[in-house]
Amino acid sequence: MIEGIAASNGIAIAKAYQLVTPELTYEKKSIDDPNKEVERLEKALDTAKEELEKIRAHTRKEMGDEHAEIFSAHLLVLDDPELVNPIKDKIRNENVIAETALEETTNMFIDMFKNMDNEYMRERAADIQDVAKRVLAHLLGVTIPNPGLIDEEVIVIAKDLTPSDTAQLNREFVQGFATDIGGRTSHSAIMARSLEIPAVVGTKEITDIVQHNDMVIVDGIEGKVILNPSDDELASYKKKQANFDKQKEEWAELKDEPTITADKEQVELAANIGTPDDVASVLANGGEGIGLYRTEFLYMGKSQLPTEDEQYDAYKTVLEQMEDKPVVVRTLDIGGDKELSYLDLPEELNPFLGFRAIRFCLENEDIFRTQLRALLRASAHGNLKIMFPMVATLEEFQQANNILLDEKQNLKDEGISVSDDIEVGIMVEIPSTAVIAKQFAKEVDFFSIGTNDLIQYTMAADRMNERVSYLYQPYHPAILNLISTVIEAAHAEDKWVGMCGEMAGDSIAIPALLGLGLDEFSMSATSILPARTQIRGLSQEKMASCKNKFLSMGTAEEVVEFVKEKTE
Amino acid sequence: MIEGIAASNGIAIAKAYQLVTPELTYEKKSIDDPNKEVERLEKALDTAKEELEKIRAHTRKEMGDEHAEIFSAHLLVLDDPELVNPIKDKIRNENVIAETALEETTNMFIDMFKNMDNEYMRERAADIQDVAKRVLAHLLGVTIPNPGLIDEEVIVIAKDLTPSDTAQLNREFVQGFATDIGGRTSHSAIMARSLEIPAVVGTKEITDIVQHNDMVIVDGIEGKVILNPSDDELASYKKKQANFDKQKEEWAELKDEPTITADKEQVELAANIGTPDDVASVLANGGEGIGLYRTEFLYMGKSQLPTEDEQYDAYKTVLEQMEDKPVVVRTLDIGGDKELSYLDLPEELNPFLGFRAIRFCLENEDIFRTQLRALLRASAHGNLKIMFPMVATLEEFQQANNILLDEKQNLKDEGISVSDDIEVGIMVEIPSTAVIAKQFAKEVDFFSIGTNDLIQYTMAADRMNERVSYLYQPYHPAILNLISTVIEAAHAEDKWVGMCGEMAGDSIAIPALLGLGLDEFSMSATSILPARTQIRGLSQEKMASCKNKFLSMGTAEEVVEFVKEKTE
Repeated sequence: MIEGIAASNGIAIAKAYQLVTPELTYEKKSIDDPNKEVERLEKALDTAKEELEKIRAHTRKEMGDEHAEIFSAHLLVLDDPELVNPIKDKIRNENVIAETALEETTNMFIDMFKNMDNEYMRERAADIQDVAKRVLAHLLGVTIPNPGLIDEEVIVIAKDLTPSDTAQLNREFVQGFATDIGGRTSHSAIMARSLEIPAVVGTKEITDIVQHNDMVIVDGIEGKVILNPSDDELASYKKKQANFDKQKEEWAELKDEPTITADKEQVELAANIGTPDDVASVLANGGEGIGLYRTEFLYMGKSQLPTEDEQYDAYKTVLEQMEDKPVVVRTLDIGGDKELSYLDLPEELNPFLGFRAIRFCLENEDIFRTQLRALLRASAHGNLKIMFPMVATLEEFQQANNILLDEKQNLKDEGISVSDDIEVGIMVEIPSTAVIAKQFAKEVDFFSIGTNDLIQYTMAADRMNERVSYLYQPYHPAILNLISTVIEAAHAEDKWVGMCGEMAGDSIAIPALLGLGLDEFSMSATSILPARTQIRGLSQEKMASCKNKFLSMGTAEEVVEFVKEKTE
Repeated sequence: MIEGIAASNGIAIAKAYQLVTPELTYEKKSIDDPNKEVERLEKALDTAKEELEKIRAHTRKEMGDEHAEIFSAHLLVLDDPELVNPIKDKIRNENVIAETALEETTNMFIDMFKNMDNEYMRERAADIQDVAKRVLAHLLGVTIPNPGLIDEEVIVIAKDLTPSDTAQLNREFVQGFATDIGGRTSHSAIMARSLEIPAVVGTKEITDIVQHNDMVIVDGIEGKVILNPSDDELASYKKKQANFDKQKEEWAELKDEPTITADKEQVELAANIGTPDDVASVLANGGEGIGLYRTEFLYMGKSQLPTEDEQYDAYKTVLEQMEDKPVVVRTLDIGGDKELSYLDLPEELNPFLGFRAIRFCLENEDIFRTQLRALLRASAHGNLKIMFPMVATLEEFQQANNILLDEKQNLKDEGISVSDDIEVGIMVEIPSTAVIAKQFAKEVDFFSIGTNDLIQYTMAADRMNERVSYLYQPYHPAILNLISTVIEAAHAEDKWVGMCGEMAGDSIAIPALLGLGLDEFSMSATSILPARTQIRGLSQEKMASCKNKFLSMGTAEEVVEFVKEKTE
């Protein structure tokens, strides 16, 4: 049994699929029969070619032509006689094994291309490197796993899942994840919740312990992975799985119910989404709105900026599907850990404290105006609210809002219809903005607290950095005090406050947030029904009456104990 | 005239010394007379050798044997026939010029050493690289500037000054600095103030405009650099220089006066220091204490950790020289932008949000205990206060304080005398700690607000990152509100609050900080007398009466205007 962090609810039982690159080492030796080596090389090249064609076809189908291009480039490399012939010559002239000839020849080309002062040639170096690795693996008889090639029910075991891994995953077959690193807010965790499959992250060592094809159980409720379960364990987990499915059915009964506390206070439960495709799950899970539409995905995995029309179509689709329910769209939040290859953003020593989100947009007004125009045009099709990310000063909000008003006027002048009821708000994710929320509340229509970043900055701890991730403390009294400051400031001006960080869906945080007066909770779609169930059992008044108590506590631990006791 | 940021007061007039590595490019060509090329090579090797011997002697004298070692390693490279002979062979066999032969041969060795899985060999690669650059410069007849070789009065012109540049500077001759990058809190600026020489930083382009040996004036009062001044300008700046000297004399009259406002409120003006050598300047400038003794320098530029006795000697020296005046020693604050070569700290994506200061010390208790023992032993010799950096949670303070108490008991058990009046406090530089200062105030003896970091985290902006440095706003109302929270919390528990960031010495900030009730201002020693002069002209009551006004403002700009108006 391996312990980790419960990242996505549920129980999965299946064979392990090790998504780990094997070691590609071999012994150098000289040979007697060069022809045999050339033959081995040719066979490895052929196998690599077949494999790449399969991956390309799968990627094209799942993600579109643009994403599949990279594999076409790899296939070109494999077919290039200027690369392949020198490898064969080397085998024949130097009597080395195919592995050595492949590695030395490709390394020479890689070094040559890498040192050219030309972005295109440097990319070719990367292509050759990828292809050489694949061919070498085939020469050595080992497999480089590819998530796109999964064709049976498995549980993916990996160090961590990158966005590109998850993009390639064959969702039909993947039953669950278990990873070495990551926490509840890491990419793999968020992705698992959005795919509604169980996941355990941060196990530290699962890739070392579990072998490819081992039978494993992922318990995403308690954060455990059971390796090669006994019959008894298997039976007991199958029962747990059935119970969970039953609980899900119970939750589902609340799908169309309002979110009302035991003492009849109503709050809103909304969802965070990344693409129009996510809306179906929001509606299926009884979301009362979209509290955060991350627009970055429109800009990512492409070779150029999305056009105004492309964006308009996406926003309109979401607004129409949500009918009159509120949809809060966050304007472009790139920089930090999110890069766009075609923009050539500068490297930064501390990207989380760097040139990102609204800072970037205010300096790249063209890109910003295109997005705002697309949003304004889409506003005619639903209940749109626009939100600016990473606002640290009042001037930034004013500047962004002026650009928005300017584009609105431009569209009106062009005779294009634009809603006149668009609320304009900001993310509160920088401590300065929380501290002077009173000043902001006079100018914005709403706040949405982005706890992932707010906690990071308030505690001065990068949550992705394992050495300090213990300081990422959502229940730290300083965080709760800042949240309270924001809510009080907003309510004094009759504005509403939402929360779109992971904290909004956390069962320990929910009672405290209710007590602080939070109006809207936005979370992974799959967390909505459990949250609704929980909230219907809580008294808002009771939690509000003890808020001064937990706000004056010294540590996160005390807060957690206190909240647990109050909600027992 | 080039504008920049006034980083250190005063006027300097001297020739420019361009501390910029020249471009080392040349045309490849073939030759007729290899012997002539070999001769050129030998001459360049000899010149490089002489130069390195001079630099080594200077470094040894100014900074000690340990720092000079690197140049001994460089001299060994120059003398190594296994490196030099292949260069000569290449000239003779391939008919290439000495530059080509030097570069190709050394590059081969560098690549070879770099790729070895051995730290020692990788360092050798760096040595060869440095030496090859120096020899190539001599072949091309250009000079690689070396701050240690300055032997006449100059103004140093540089992109930026690294700690190692300033360590090598011949302080006798350097009259001022002007740099392309940096702000008031960058290393070069702090160093200039500590050397009491005028400096202008952040000019963006001075290295492009000023030539080596140009006559320049650095106006560190207004943040200007005048290139090749006219006779009139020269005369006018000489007058300004004389006035500044006169003003310095007036300031000096306040050296032994207390720091009292016009309405008779007393505050303390202390200094920030890095080494015992800095104490003389603190006393000469009328410092009433040391508000921040940065102990990192004891750990830096060495090949191993300082021993307990080494540390004890340094702390004792400072305490004795300061007699009964308070000395606040900050425990080790490494990590972030401060690395120690011998500790092998992990690379981090966001070092400012990473594993540093108290976070590091609590995980490396041996290192921490050694420092605490040295401090406790030194406490018998003066008025010591101990301060923990980067505290984000109450648990961290408690854990650190328990270790301190434990070592105190150990020393007592060993019969070693330890003061019983050591105050123990924390830096307030992480927003969480400022927000719940009330909770901390019950447990600590004092707070010292570290504004450099507090501003960085509160605004989520790396101040060293030029793209976002505009967000480093000391007068932002959020910063002032946090400072106010800390002071009110401390005073409610009869504790005192100091400030040891650059803001404490800033003439715009001082009136606001007085109004907020700050007890101790700790700054560069040379800022103390101007600050004392300013404070004697201010009314604490008047500033306190308007604090609610500036705390509720929306922007830094409004605050600055308001404070200026109130203190006119």
